[in-house]
Amino acid sequence: MKRLNENQNGPTIGVFDSGFGGLTVLRALLPLVPAAHYIYLGDTARLPYGSKSRETIARYAVSSARYLEDQGADLLVIACNTATALALDDISSACDVPVVGVIAPGAQAALETVGTPKAAKILVLATAATVQSHAYREACDALGLVATEKACPLLVPLLEEGWTDHPVTRDVLRIYLTEALSEVSPDAVLLGCTHYPLIAGAIEAMLRELGSNARVIDSAEATAQAVARKLNEVGFTHSTSDQTPATFQCIATDSVEKFANLGSGFLGRPIPAVELLDLGG
Amino acid sequence: MKRLNENQNGPTIGVFDSGFGGLTVLRALLPLVPAAHYIYLGDTARLPYGSKSRETIARYAVSSARYLEDQGADLLVIACNTATALALDDISSACDVPVVGVIAPGAQAALETVGTPKAAKILVLATAATVQSHAYREACDALGLVATEKACPLLVPLLEEGWTDHPVTRDVLRIYLTEALSEVSPDAVLLGCTHYPLIAGAIEAMLRELGSNARVIDSAEATAQAVARKLNEVGFTHSTSDQTPATFQCIATDSVEKFANLGSGFLGRPIPAVELLDLGG
Repeated sequence: MKRLNENQNGPTIGVFDSGFGGLTVLRALLPLVPAAHYIYLGDTARLPYGSKSRETIARYAVSSARYLEDQGADLLVIACNTATALALDDISSACDVPVVGVIAPGAQAALETVGTPKAAKILVLATAATVQSHAYREACDALGLVATEKACPLLVPLLEEGWTDHPVTRDVLRIYLTEALSEVSPDAVLLGCTHYPLIAGAIEAMLRELGSNARVIDSAEATAQAVARKLNEVGFTHSTSDQTPATFQCIATDSVEKFANLGSGFLGRPIPAVELLDLGG
Repeated sequence: MKRLNENQNGPTIGVFDSGFGGLTVLRALLPLVPAAHYIYLGDTARLPYGSKSRETIARYAVSSARYLEDQGADLLVIACNTATALALDDISSACDVPVVGVIAPGAQAALETVGTPKAAKILVLATAATVQSHAYREACDALGLVATEKACPLLVPLLEEGWTDHPVTRDVLRIYLTEALSEVSPDAVLLGCTHYPLIAGAIEAMLRELGSNARVIDSAEATAQAVARKLNEVGFTHSTSDQTPATFQCIATDSVEKFANLGSGFLGRPIPAVELLDLGG
Protein backbone atom coordinates (compact mmCIF):
# COMPACT_ATOMS: atom_id res chain seq x y z
CA MET A 1 0.00 0.00 0.00
CA LYS A 2 1.60 3.22 -1.15
CA ARG A 3 1.08 6.41 0.76
CA LEU A 4 -0.52 9.33 -0.97
CA ASN A 5 1.92 11.91 -2.29
CA GLU A 6 0.15 15.05 -1.15
CA ASN A 7 2.38 17.07 -3.42
CA GLN A 8 1.38 15.61 -6.79
CA ASN A 9 3.78 17.65 -8.90
CA GLY A 10 6.94 16.86 -6.99
CA PRO A 11 8.87 13.82 -5.90
CA THR A 12 8.26 11.77 -2.78
CA ILE A 13 11.40 11.87 -0.65
CA GLY A 14 11.96 9.31 2.09
CA VAL A 15 14.09 10.51 5.00
CA PHE A 16 15.39 7.93 7.45
CA ASP A 17 17.10 8.10 10.84
CA SER A 18 17.30 5.86 13.91
CA GLY A 19 15.51 8.57 15.88
CA PHE A 20 14.58 12.22 15.45
CA GLY A 21 18.09 13.62 14.97
CA GLY A 22 17.60 13.35 11.21
CA LEU A 23 14.87 15.97 11.47
CA THR A 24 17.74 18.52 11.34
CA VAL A 25 18.29 17.29 7.76
CA LEU A 26 14.57 17.48 6.93
CA ARG A 27 14.62 21.03 8.34
CA ALA A 28 17.32 21.98 5.82
CA LEU A 29 15.48 20.20 2.99
CA LEU A 30 12.05 21.82 3.39
CA PRO A 31 13.07 25.32 2.15
CA LEU A 32 15.57 24.03 -0.42
CA VAL A 33 13.32 21.44 -2.11
CA PRO A 34 9.83 22.69 -1.22
CA ALA A 35 7.83 21.13 -4.06
CA ALA A 36 8.04 17.64 -2.63
CA HIS A 37 6.26 15.28 -0.29
CA TYR A 38 8.45 14.00 2.56
CA ILE A 39 8.02 10.78 4.53
CA TYR A 40 10.24 10.81 7.61
CA LEU A 41 10.83 7.47 9.36
CA GLY A 42 12.48 7.32 12.80
CA ASP A 43 13.33 3.79 13.92
CA THR A 44 12.91 4.72 17.59
CA ALA A 45 12.08 1.15 18.70
CA ARG A 46 15.63 0.07 17.87
CA LEU A 47 17.67 3.19 18.65
CA PRO A 48 20.39 3.97 19.45
CA TYR A 49 22.25 2.58 16.44
CA GLY A 50 25.55 4.20 17.51
CA SER A 51 26.47 1.53 20.07
CA LYS A 52 25.51 -1.50 17.94
CA SER A 53 27.41 -3.74 15.50
CA ARG A 54 27.65 -3.24 11.74
CA GLU A 55 25.53 -6.32 10.96
CA THR A 56 22.71 -5.23 13.26
CA ILE A 57 22.75 -1.63 12.02
CA ALA A 58 22.68 -2.79 8.38
CA ARG A 59 19.72 -5.12 9.04
CA TYR A 60 17.74 -2.38 10.79
CA ALA A 61 18.58 0.32 8.22
CA VAL A 62 17.81 -1.85 5.17
CA SER A 63 14.37 -2.82 6.53
CA SER A 64 13.58 0.86 7.17
CA ALA A 65 14.81 1.95 3.72
CA ARG A 66 12.80 -0.78 2.00
CA TYR A 67 9.69 0.36 3.84
CA LEU A 68 10.14 3.92 2.55
CA GLU A 69 10.69 2.64 -1.00
CA ASP A 70 7.52 0.53 -0.72
CA GLN A 71 5.67 3.71 0.31
CA GLY A 72 6.59 5.32 -2.99
CA ALA A 73 9.78 7.23 -2.21
CA ASP A 74 11.53 8.40 -5.40
CA LEU A 75 14.73 9.11 -3.47
CA LEU A 76 16.02 8.12 -0.03
CA VAL A 77 17.99 10.32 2.34
CA ILE A 78 19.86 8.39 5.02
CA ALA A 79 19.80 11.23 7.58
CA CYS A 80 21.76 9.20 10.11
CA ASN A 81 25.54 9.19 10.23
CA THR A 82 25.79 5.76 11.81
CA ALA A 83 23.55 4.14 9.17
CA THR A 84 25.39 6.00 6.40
CA ALA A 85 28.78 4.97 7.76
CA LEU A 86 27.95 1.32 8.20
CA ALA A 87 25.14 0.51 5.80
CA LEU A 88 25.02 2.93 2.82
CA ASP A 89 26.23 0.22 0.42
CA ASP A 90 23.77 -2.33 1.83
CA ILE A 91 20.90 0.15 1.49
CA SER A 92 21.88 1.15 -2.06
CA SER A 93 22.05 -2.54 -3.08
CA ALA A 94 18.69 -3.31 -1.49
CA CYS A 95 16.80 -0.37 -3.05
CA ASP A 96 16.07 0.65 -6.66
CA VAL A 97 15.86 4.41 -6.05
CA PRO A 98 18.79 6.83 -5.55
CA VAL A 99 20.16 6.94 -2.00
CA VAL A 100 21.91 9.99 -0.49
CA GLY A 101 23.86 9.70 2.78
CA VAL A 102 25.20 12.43 5.06
CA ILE A 103 28.91 11.64 5.16
CA ALA A 104 30.13 12.57 1.66
CA PRO A 105 28.18 15.89 1.78
CA GLY A 106 29.60 16.54 5.25
CA ALA A 107 33.17 16.02 4.06
CA GLN A 108 32.45 18.27 1.04
CA ALA A 109 31.13 20.98 3.37
CA ALA A 110 34.33 20.70 5.42
CA LEU A 111 36.39 21.18 2.27
CA GLU A 112 34.40 24.28 1.31
CA THR A 113 34.79 25.68 4.83
CA VAL A 114 38.56 25.35 5.08
CA GLY A 115 38.99 26.65 1.52
CA THR A 116 42.25 24.89 0.84
CA PRO A 117 42.40 21.13 1.04
CA LYS A 118 46.17 20.96 1.55
CA ALA A 119 46.18 18.62 4.55
CA ALA A 120 43.67 20.77 6.42
CA LYS A 121 42.82 19.14 9.74
CA ILE A 122 39.21 18.21 10.40
CA LEU A 123 37.99 17.00 13.80
CA VAL A 124 34.92 14.78 13.35
CA LEU A 125 32.63 14.28 16.38
CA ALA A 126 30.41 11.19 16.05
CA THR A 127 28.99 8.06 17.71
CA ALA A 128 31.21 5.10 18.59
CA ALA A 129 29.97 3.04 15.63
CA THR A 130 30.55 5.87 13.13
CA VAL A 131 34.07 6.45 14.46
CA GLN A 132 34.92 2.74 14.37
CA SER A 133 33.82 2.57 10.72
CA HIS A 134 36.34 5.33 9.78
CA ALA A 135 33.88 6.38 7.05
CA TYR A 136 34.66 10.07 7.70
CA ARG A 137 38.41 9.47 7.58
CA GLU A 138 38.01 7.85 4.18
CA ALA A 139 35.64 10.53 2.84
CA CYS A 140 37.98 13.33 4.02
CA ASP A 141 41.05 11.53 2.74
CA ALA A 142 39.48 11.37 -0.74
CA LEU A 143 39.23 15.18 -0.68
CA GLY A 144 42.77 15.78 0.61
CA LEU A 145 41.62 16.50 4.18
CA VAL A 146 43.08 14.86 7.28
CA ALA A 147 40.35 13.73 9.68
CA THR A 148 40.67 12.93 13.39
CA GLU A 149 37.58 11.07 14.58
CA LYS A 150 36.36 11.41 18.18
CA ALA A 151 33.60 9.22 19.64
CA CYS A 152 31.16 11.16 21.87
CA PRO A 153 28.85 8.34 23.05
CA LEU A 154 27.05 10.24 25.81
CA LEU A 155 25.88 13.19 23.71
CA VAL A 156 22.93 11.36 22.13
CA PRO A 157 21.51 10.16 25.50
CA LEU A 158 21.95 13.68 26.93
CA LEU A 159 20.16 15.29 23.96
CA GLU A 160 17.45 12.61 23.99
CA GLU A 161 16.83 13.75 27.59
CA GLY A 162 16.47 17.33 26.43
CA TRP A 163 19.60 18.46 28.33
CA THR A 164 20.66 20.75 25.46
CA ASP A 165 21.53 23.72 27.69
CA HIS A 166 22.78 21.98 30.81
CA PRO A 167 25.98 22.07 32.89
CA VAL A 168 26.41 18.28 32.67
CA THR A 169 26.27 18.42 28.88
CA ARG A 170 28.89 21.19 28.96
CA ASP A 171 31.07 19.08 31.31
CA VAL A 172 30.81 16.08 28.99
CA LEU A 173 31.64 18.33 26.00
CA ARG A 174 34.63 19.73 27.88
CA ILE A 175 35.93 16.19 28.52
CA TYR A 176 35.45 15.02 24.93
CA LEU A 177 36.88 18.19 23.33
CA THR A 178 39.85 18.38 25.72
CA GLU A 179 40.73 14.79 24.81
CA ALA A 180 40.35 15.55 21.08
CA LEU A 181 42.33 18.83 21.16
CA SER A 182 45.23 17.06 22.90
CA GLU A 183 45.61 15.09 19.67
CA VAL A 184 44.85 17.66 16.99
CA SER A 185 44.53 21.43 16.44
CA PRO A 186 41.70 21.32 13.92
CA ASP A 187 40.91 23.87 11.21
CA ALA A 188 37.26 22.83 11.37
CA VAL A 189 35.02 20.61 13.52
CA LEU A 190 32.50 18.50 11.61
CA LEU A 191 29.35 17.38 13.43
CA GLY A 192 29.17 13.72 12.41
CA CYS A 193 25.85 12.96 14.09
CA THR A 194 22.49 14.52 13.21
CA HIS A 195 21.74 15.08 16.91
CA TYR A 196 24.70 17.40 17.41
CA PRO A 197 23.45 20.49 15.48
CA LEU A 198 21.15 21.07 18.46
CA ILE A 199 24.24 21.95 20.54
CA ALA A 200 26.36 23.49 17.77
CA GLY A 201 26.49 26.72 19.75
CA ALA A 202 27.65 24.97 22.93
CA ILE A 203 30.30 23.05 20.96
CA GLU A 204 31.61 26.28 19.40
CA ALA A 205 31.64 28.03 22.81
CA MET A 206 33.56 25.13 24.37
CA LEU A 207 36.10 25.14 21.51
CA ARG A 208 36.72 28.86 22.18
CA GLU A 209 37.02 28.21 25.94
CA LEU A 210 39.64 25.56 25.17
CA GLY A 211 41.57 27.93 22.88
CA SER A 212 40.48 26.61 19.47
CA ASN A 213 39.24 28.87 16.67
CA ALA A 214 37.95 25.96 14.55
CA ARG A 215 34.68 26.56 12.74
CA VAL A 216 31.80 24.16 13.42
CA ILE A 217 30.26 22.48 10.35
CA ASP A 218 26.82 20.91 10.25
CA SER A 219 26.30 18.43 7.41
CA ALA A 220 22.50 18.94 7.26
CA GLU A 221 22.68 21.91 4.86
CA ALA A 222 25.28 20.18 2.65
CA THR A 223 23.15 17.03 2.55
CA ALA A 224 20.09 19.03 1.48
CA GLN A 225 22.13 20.52 -1.38
CA ALA A 226 23.29 17.02 -2.43
CA VAL A 227 19.65 15.90 -2.50
CA ALA A 228 18.70 18.86 -4.73
CA ARG A 229 21.52 18.01 -7.16
CA LYS A 230 20.57 14.32 -7.23
CA LEU A 231 16.91 15.17 -7.95
CA ASN A 232 18.05 17.26 -10.94
CA GLU A 233 20.23 14.40 -12.16
CA VAL A 234 17.36 11.95 -12.12
CA GLY A 235 14.98 14.35 -13.85
CA PHE A 236 12.97 15.98 -11.11
CA THR A 237 13.09 19.70 -11.77
CA HIS A 238 12.36 21.91 -8.80
CA SER A 239 12.58 25.50 -7.90
CA THR A 240 12.71 27.23 -4.56
CA SER A 241 10.33 29.77 -6.06
CA ASP A 242 7.70 27.07 -6.55
CA GLN A 243 4.54 28.17 -4.79
CA THR A 244 3.57 24.68 -3.65
CA PRO A 245 4.58 24.24 -0.02
CA ALA A 246 6.35 21.05 0.96
CA THR A 247 4.22 18.47 2.75
CA PHE A 248 5.54 15.93 5.21
CA GLN A 249 4.47 13.07 7.40
CA CYS A 250 6.36 11.53 10.32
CA ILE A 251 6.43 7.85 11.24
CA ALA A 252 8.17 6.30 14.25
CA THR A 253 8.54 2.68 15.33
CA ASP A 254 8.01 3.56 19.01
CA SER A 255 7.25 6.37 21.47
CA VAL A 256 5.38 8.61 19.02
CA GLU A 257 4.50 11.16 21.70
CA LYS A 258 8.12 11.65 22.73
CA PHE A 259 8.97 11.91 19.02
CA ALA A 260 6.41 14.67 18.51
CA ASN A 261 7.48 16.56 21.65
CA LEU A 262 11.26 16.43 21.33
CA GLY A 263 11.33 16.21 17.54
CA SER A 264 9.77 19.62 17.04
CA GLY A 265 12.93 21.15 18.56
CA PHE A 266 15.00 19.43 15.89
CA LEU A 267 12.63 20.28 13.03
CA GLY A 268 12.16 23.86 14.16
CA ARG A 269 8.37 23.68 13.78
CA PRO A 270 5.55 21.73 15.40
CA ILE A 271 5.06 18.11 14.35
CA PRO A 272 1.30 17.62 14.03
CA ALA A 273 0.91 13.84 14.20
CA VAL A 274 3.33 10.93 14.30
CA GLU A 275 2.19 7.54 13.02
CA LEU A 276 3.27 4.37 14.83
CA LEU A 277 4.79 1.65 12.63
CA ASP A 278 5.74 -1.91 13.56
CA LEU A 279 8.74 -3.06 11.52
CA GLY A 280 8.85 -6.32 13.52
CA GLY A 281 11.68 -7.43 15.74
CA MET B 1 17.45 -27.67 19.50
CA LYS B 2 17.92 -27.70 23.24
CA ARG B 3 21.21 -26.71 24.77
CA LEU B 4 23.09 -29.24 26.85
CA ASN B 5 22.60 -28.85 30.58
CA GLU B 6 26.19 -29.25 31.70
CA ASN B 7 24.99 -29.73 35.24
CA GLN B 8 22.93 -32.89 34.82
CA ASN B 9 21.68 -33.13 38.40
CA GLY B 10 20.34 -29.60 38.71
CA PRO B 11 17.87 -27.38 36.94
CA THR B 12 18.56 -25.23 33.92
CA ILE B 13 17.86 -21.60 34.84
CA GLY B 14 17.34 -18.99 32.14
CA VAL B 15 18.33 -15.45 33.14
CA PHE B 16 17.22 -12.60 30.92
CA ASP B 17 18.06 -8.89 30.71
CA SER B 18 18.11 -6.26 27.97
CA GLY B 19 21.88 -5.99 28.45
CA PHE B 20 24.46 -7.10 30.95
CA GLY B 21 23.05 -5.35 34.04
CA GLY B 22 21.23 -8.58 34.93
CA LEU B 23 24.62 -10.22 35.48
CA THR B 24 24.46 -8.67 38.99
CA VAL B 25 21.52 -11.05 39.59
CA LEU B 26 23.40 -14.03 38.11
CA ARG B 27 26.30 -13.07 40.39
CA ALA B 28 24.03 -13.41 43.44
CA LEU B 29 22.53 -16.69 42.12
CA LEU B 30 25.77 -18.60 41.48
CA PRO B 31 26.73 -19.10 45.16
CA LEU B 32 23.11 -19.49 46.36
CA VAL B 33 21.96 -22.07 43.80
CA PRO B 34 25.24 -23.63 42.68
CA ALA B 35 24.00 -27.00 41.44
CA ALA B 36 22.42 -25.57 38.31
CA HIS B 37 23.20 -24.71 34.72
CA TYR B 38 22.56 -21.07 33.84
CA ILE B 39 21.82 -19.64 30.39
CA TYR B 40 22.11 -15.84 30.46
CA LEU B 41 20.58 -13.94 27.54
CA GLY B 42 21.30 -10.22 27.04
CA ASP B 43 19.15 -8.62 24.32
CA THR B 44 21.88 -6.07 23.51
CA ALA B 45 20.71 -5.53 19.90
CA ARG B 46 17.51 -3.92 21.20
CA LEU B 47 18.68 -2.17 24.39
CA PRO B 48 17.98 0.09 26.10
CA TYR B 49 14.46 -1.02 27.06
CA GLY B 50 14.08 1.78 29.62
CA SER B 51 13.18 4.49 27.10
CA LYS B 52 10.75 2.41 25.00
CA SER B 53 6.99 1.79 25.12
CA ARG B 54 5.22 -1.02 26.98
CA GLU B 55 4.15 -2.78 23.77
CA THR B 56 7.66 -2.81 22.34
CA ILE B 57 9.26 -3.93 25.62
CA ALA B 58 6.71 -6.75 25.98
CA ARG B 59 7.32 -7.97 22.42
CA TYR B 60 11.09 -7.99 22.91
CA ALA B 61 10.97 -9.61 26.36
CA VAL B 62 8.51 -12.35 25.36
CA SER B 63 10.63 -13.39 22.36
CA SER B 64 13.71 -13.57 24.59
CA ALA B 65 11.91 -15.55 27.31
CA ARG B 66 10.50 -18.00 24.76
CA TYR B 67 13.97 -18.56 23.39
CA LEU B 68 15.27 -19.48 26.85
CA GLU B 69 12.34 -21.85 27.42
CA ASP B 70 13.03 -23.48 24.03
CA GLN B 71 16.61 -24.01 25.19
CA GLY B 72 15.41 -26.08 28.10
CA ALA B 73 15.11 -23.60 30.96
CA ASP B 74 13.18 -25.03 33.91
CA LEU B 75 12.74 -21.57 35.43
CA LEU B 76 13.13 -18.04 34.08
CA VAL B 77 14.57 -15.09 35.96
CA ILE B 78 13.63 -11.72 34.46
CA ALA B 79 16.75 -9.92 35.71
CA CYS B 80 15.64 -6.61 34.22
CA ASN B 81 13.47 -4.16 36.13
CA THR B 82 11.99 -2.59 33.01
CA ALA B 83 10.93 -5.95 31.53
CA THR B 84 9.59 -7.07 34.93
CA ALA B 85 7.66 -3.84 35.39
CA LEU B 86 6.07 -3.81 31.95
CA ALA B 87 5.99 -7.40 30.76
CA LEU B 88 6.04 -9.92 33.64
CA ASP B 89 2.41 -10.91 33.02
CA ASP B 90 2.98 -11.20 29.26
CA ILE B 91 6.05 -13.39 29.84
CA SER B 92 4.27 -15.60 32.40
CA SER B 93 1.35 -16.08 30.00
CA ALA B 94 3.65 -16.91 27.08
CA CYS B 95 5.79 -19.47 28.96
CA ASP B 96 5.02 -22.79 30.67
CA VAL B 97 7.81 -22.63 33.28
CA PRO B 98 7.85 -20.55 36.50
CA VAL B 99 8.93 -16.93 36.00
CA VAL B 100 10.60 -14.82 38.73
CA GLY B 101 10.95 -11.05 38.34
CA VAL B 102 13.05 -8.58 40.34
CA ILE B 103 10.40 -6.14 41.59
CA ALA B 104 8.48 -8.17 44.19
CA PRO B 105 11.76 -9.46 45.73
CA GLY B 106 13.11 -5.89 45.72
CA ALA B 107 10.06 -4.58 47.58
CA GLN B 108 10.35 -7.48 50.04
CA ALA B 109 14.02 -6.63 50.65
CA ALA B 110 13.01 -3.03 51.32
CA LEU B 111 10.48 -4.22 53.90
CA GLU B 112 13.09 -6.36 55.65
CA THR B 113 15.55 -3.44 55.67
CA VAL B 114 13.24 -0.89 57.25
CA GLY B 115 11.98 -3.48 59.76
CA THR B 116 8.60 -1.86 60.32
CA PRO B 117 6.29 -1.41 57.39
CA LYS B 118 4.25 1.34 59.03
CA ALA B 119 4.29 3.80 56.12
CA ALA B 120 8.07 3.58 55.82
CA LYS B 121 9.25 5.72 52.94
CA ILE B 122 11.14 4.04 50.11
CA LEU B 123 12.84 5.99 47.32
CA VAL B 124 13.02 3.85 44.17
CA LEU B 125 15.61 4.80 41.52
CA ALA B 126 14.82 3.32 38.09
CA THR B 127 14.56 3.89 34.33
CA ALA B 128 11.86 6.12 32.84
CA ALA B 129 9.78 3.14 31.67
CA THR B 130 9.93 1.40 35.07
CA VAL B 131 8.90 4.61 36.85
CA GLN B 132 6.03 5.26 34.43
CA SER B 133 4.69 1.74 35.04
CA HIS B 134 4.46 2.43 38.82
CA ALA B 135 5.18 -1.28 39.35
CA TYR B 136 7.34 -0.48 42.39
CA ARG B 137 4.70 1.79 43.90
CA GLU B 138 2.17 -1.03 43.66
CA ALA B 139 4.58 -3.69 45.01
CA CYS B 140 5.54 -1.45 47.95
CA ASP B 141 1.95 -0.45 48.60
CA ALA B 142 1.00 -4.13 48.91
CA LEU B 143 3.56 -4.43 51.74
CA GLY B 144 2.49 -1.25 53.55
CA LEU B 145 5.46 0.78 52.25
CA VAL B 146 5.17 4.20 50.61
CA ALA B 147 7.29 4.42 47.46
CA THR B 148 8.51 7.55 45.67
CA GLU B 149 9.78 6.67 42.19
CA LYS B 150 12.54 8.70 40.56
CA ALA B 151 13.56 8.22 36.90
CA CYS B 152 17.35 8.33 36.35
CA PRO B 153 17.55 7.96 32.55
CA LEU B 154 21.22 8.89 32.12
CA LEU B 155 22.67 6.36 34.57
CA VAL B 156 22.47 3.38 32.21
CA PRO B 157 24.26 5.19 29.33
CA LEU B 158 26.94 6.39 31.79
CA LEU B 159 27.49 2.87 33.18
CA GLU B 160 27.42 1.34 29.70
CA GLU B 161 30.34 3.71 28.96
CA GLY B 162 32.19 2.38 32.00
CA TRP B 163 32.03 5.76 33.80
CA THR B 164 31.37 4.06 37.16
CA ASP B 165 33.84 6.19 39.12
CA HIS B 166 33.62 9.50 37.28
CA PRO B 167 32.87 13.11 38.25
CA VAL B 168 30.13 13.41 35.60
CA THR B 169 28.36 10.35 37.00
CA ARG B 170 28.57 11.90 40.49
CA ASP B 171 27.20 15.21 39.11
CA VAL B 172 24.28 13.40 37.48
CA LEU B 173 23.66 11.45 40.72
CA ARG B 174 23.75 14.74 42.68
CA ILE B 175 21.10 16.22 40.35
CA TYR B 176 18.79 13.18 40.49
CA LEU B 177 19.13 12.67 44.26
CA THR B 178 18.73 16.37 45.07
CA GLU B 179 15.49 16.39 43.05
CA ALA B 180 14.28 13.21 44.79
CA LEU B 181 15.21 14.34 48.34
CA SER B 182 13.30 17.59 47.81
CA GLU B 183 10.17 15.41 47.64
CA VAL B 184 10.85 12.72 50.23
CA SER B 185 13.12 11.88 53.18
CA PRO B 186 13.42 8.16 52.56
CA ASP B 187 14.09 5.43 55.10
CA ALA B 188 15.66 3.33 52.36
CA VAL B 189 16.69 3.73 48.71
CA LEU B 190 15.89 0.78 46.45
CA LEU B 191 17.98 0.30 43.30
CA GLY B 192 15.26 -0.41 40.72
CA CYS B 193 17.60 -1.16 37.83
CA THR B 194 20.11 -4.02 37.65
CA HIS B 195 22.79 -1.63 36.36
CA TYR B 196 22.77 0.48 39.49
CA PRO B 197 24.43 -1.96 41.96
CA LEU B 198 27.69 -1.11 40.16
CA ILE B 199 27.48 2.40 41.70
CA ALA B 200 25.77 1.48 44.97
CA GLY B 201 28.73 2.95 46.86
CA ALA B 202 28.58 6.24 44.94
CA ILE B 203 24.81 6.46 45.52
CA GLU B 204 25.27 5.90 49.26
CA ALA B 205 28.09 8.47 49.42
CA MET B 206 25.94 11.05 47.58
CA LEU B 207 22.99 10.40 49.93
CA ARG B 208 25.29 11.11 52.91
CA GLU B 209 26.64 14.26 51.20
CA LEU B 210 23.04 15.43 50.77
CA GLY B 211 22.21 14.72 54.43
CA SER B 212 20.29 11.45 54.06
CA ASN B 213 20.99 8.38 56.18
CA ALA B 214 18.85 6.08 54.03
CA ARG B 215 20.22 2.60 53.44
CA VAL B 216 20.75 1.46 49.85
CA ILE B 217 19.05 -1.81 48.84
CA ASP B 218 20.03 -3.97 45.88
CA SER B 219 17.34 -6.39 44.72
CA ALA B 220 19.82 -8.89 43.22
CA GLU B 221 20.35 -10.81 46.48
CA ALA B 222 16.61 -10.81 47.27
CA THR B 223 15.83 -12.05 43.75
CA ALA B 224 18.32 -14.90 44.12
CA GLN B 225 16.59 -15.95 47.35
CA ALA B 226 13.20 -15.86 45.60
CA VAL B 227 14.58 -18.12 42.89
CA ALA B 228 15.85 -20.60 45.49
CA ARG B 229 12.40 -20.68 47.15
CA LYS B 230 10.62 -21.14 43.81
CA LEU B 231 12.93 -24.04 42.86
CA ASN B 232 12.03 -25.78 46.14
CA GLU B 233 8.33 -25.19 45.48
CA VAL B 234 8.49 -26.83 42.06
CA GLY B 235 10.49 -29.81 43.36
CA PHE B 236 14.12 -29.02 42.59
CA THR B 237 16.04 -29.67 45.78
CA HIS B 238 19.35 -27.93 46.06
CA SER B 239 21.95 -27.30 48.66
CA THR B 240 24.69 -24.72 48.84
CA SER B 241 26.89 -27.52 50.18
CA ASP B 242 26.49 -29.40 46.89
CA GLN B 243 29.93 -30.08 45.48
CA THR B 244 28.91 -29.58 41.84
CA PRO B 245 29.92 -26.09 40.75
CA ALA B 246 27.40 -24.02 38.82
CA THR B 247 27.96 -23.81 35.07
CA PHE B 248 26.86 -20.92 32.89
CA GLN B 249 26.82 -19.73 29.33
CA CYS B 250 26.24 -16.19 28.05
CA ILE B 251 24.37 -15.24 24.90
CA ALA B 252 23.93 -11.72 23.49
CA THR B 253 22.00 -10.45 20.49
CA ASP B 254 24.77 -7.96 19.57
CA SER B 255 28.23 -6.68 20.50
CA VAL B 256 29.46 -9.88 22.14
CA GLU B 257 32.96 -8.47 22.73
CA LYS B 258 31.65 -5.43 24.59
CA PHE B 259 29.42 -7.80 26.57
CA ALA B 260 32.39 -9.94 27.59
CA ASN B 261 34.55 -6.92 28.48
CA LEU B 262 32.08 -4.79 30.43
CA GLY B 263 29.96 -7.71 31.66
CA SER B 264 32.77 -9.25 33.70
CA GLY B 265 32.64 -6.18 35.97
CA PHE B 266 28.96 -6.87 36.65
CA LEU B 267 29.42 -10.63 37.12
CA GLY B 268 32.53 -10.23 39.27
CA ARG B 269 34.44 -12.87 37.31
CA PRO B 270 35.71 -13.27 33.75
CA ILE B 271 33.19 -14.20 31.07
CA PRO B 272 34.93 -16.79 28.87
CA ALA B 273 32.89 -16.69 25.66
CA VAL B 274 29.70 -14.94 24.59
CA GLU B 275 27.59 -16.47 21.83
CA LEU B 276 25.89 -14.23 19.27
CA LEU B 277 22.18 -14.85 18.73
CA ASP B 278 19.87 -13.35 16.09
CA LEU B 279 16.35 -12.98 17.48
CA GLY B 280 15.27 -11.20 14.29
CA GLY B 281 14.04 -7.66 14.06
